[in-house]
Amino acid sequence: MSYYPTSIRNLIKQLTLLPGIGEKTAERLAMHILRASTTETDALCQAIMYLKQNVKLCVECFSLSDSECCQICSDPSRDASTICVVEQPAEMVAIEKGGFFKGKYHVLQGVLSPIEGVGPDQIRIKELISRMKNGNIKEVIIAVSTSVEGESTATYIANVLKPFSVKITRIATGVPMGGDIKYVDQVTLKRALEYRYVI
Amino acid sequence: MSYYPTSIRNLIKQLTLLPGIGEKTAERLAMHILRASTTETDALCQAIMYLKQNVKLCVECFSLSDSECCQICSDPSRDASTICVVEQPAEMVAIEKGGFFKGKYHVLQGVLSPIEGVGPDQIRIKELISRMKNGNIKEVIIAVSTSVEGESTATYIANVLKPFSVKITRIATGVPMGGDIKYVDQVTLKRALEYRYVI
Repeated sequence: MSYYPTSIRNLIKQLTLLPGIGEKTAERLAMHILRASTTETDALCQAIMYLKQNVKLCVECFSLSDSECCQICSDPSRDASTICVVEQPAEMVAIEKGGFFKGKYHVLQGVLSPIEGVGPDQIRIKELISRMKNGNIKEVIIAVSTSVEGESTATYIANVLKPFSVKITRIATGVPMGGDIKYVDQVTLKRALEYRYVI
Repeated sequence: MSYYPTSIRNLIKQLTLLPGIGEKTAERLAMHILRASTTETDALCQAIMYLKQNVKLCVECFSLSDSECCQICSDPSRDASTICVVEQPAEMVAIEKGGFFKGKYHVLQGVLSPIEGVGPDQIRIKELISRMKNGNIKEVIIAVSTSVEGESTATYIANVLKPFSVKITRIATGVPMGGDIKYVDQVTLKRALEYRYVI
């Protein structure tokens, strides 16, 4: 790397810290940045700094937001009586991309994991309970991952929400669409048979 | 993209302007930047801005440099009597990576291309001639690409340097190491036969 001036070497080093960016890609990006106009590179830096300064958690659902209350929570056309509980904003984005869910969300910011010291107080379960008390909620869909931690988090939430007269549901487990049954793991197959439905 | 707050959307848009970065990668990078500490993101922005402000062309060889004169030109251990003429800094870096060349460079900043309006005055040929007049140069190695433009640039440079008592050489054309002769193009094969050497 000594064949580059210090400033280029420094940028390459910073770029390789990003996920999925190796030294070759970092070199290509640094060369692009060098050739790009100052307006373009300033826009990039400002976007990074603006993001760091402005993104916060929505006071209602704890997803990412530029303002106090996120776009979804402040949208009157969304069904406030259905809440979809997810682990992280990324899972919310995955569901939103489909465009089929019209309710609101609750982002837990993690799942219960005693081994990593994550108990009910470390994730946003208390806040979910207070939303139950305040709002007119009819259904809570627990859409956390189907991992061991996700499953125990789902069971825990189902238990703490029992006192409220609310329908508690869990996303279905089964064979993915287009999936070949012979390559599906045994646990998934067992669940797919257990939760079979009448056609 | 509407499922992201404006500031995240804006950063994703800026990142997709970089070469080789698609929307998926830009999303992953934006999420990483969001989670990263302000110290880390500030270091990245500063590296970009520092690069844009500080990198200039070396007054001697016209490669990239942080100072007036680049590391190679100001290195007394490099052989100043041999100059390797390249198209762009990237080609210089490619040769430097090998570590076998101990001379100095001259970066043309392009090749002759009448179709794109690039004549001898648009690239650093005049500057190469003045280096011939000033210095004690024994050999000029023309290491521009073996494309049509590169070949005509090499011929042009060889002609203008003829008045100086200097050895003018061109990098060899032939079958690349590890190359399979049956897959090598006809022009390269013809050259490889023409420039055959005694073993």
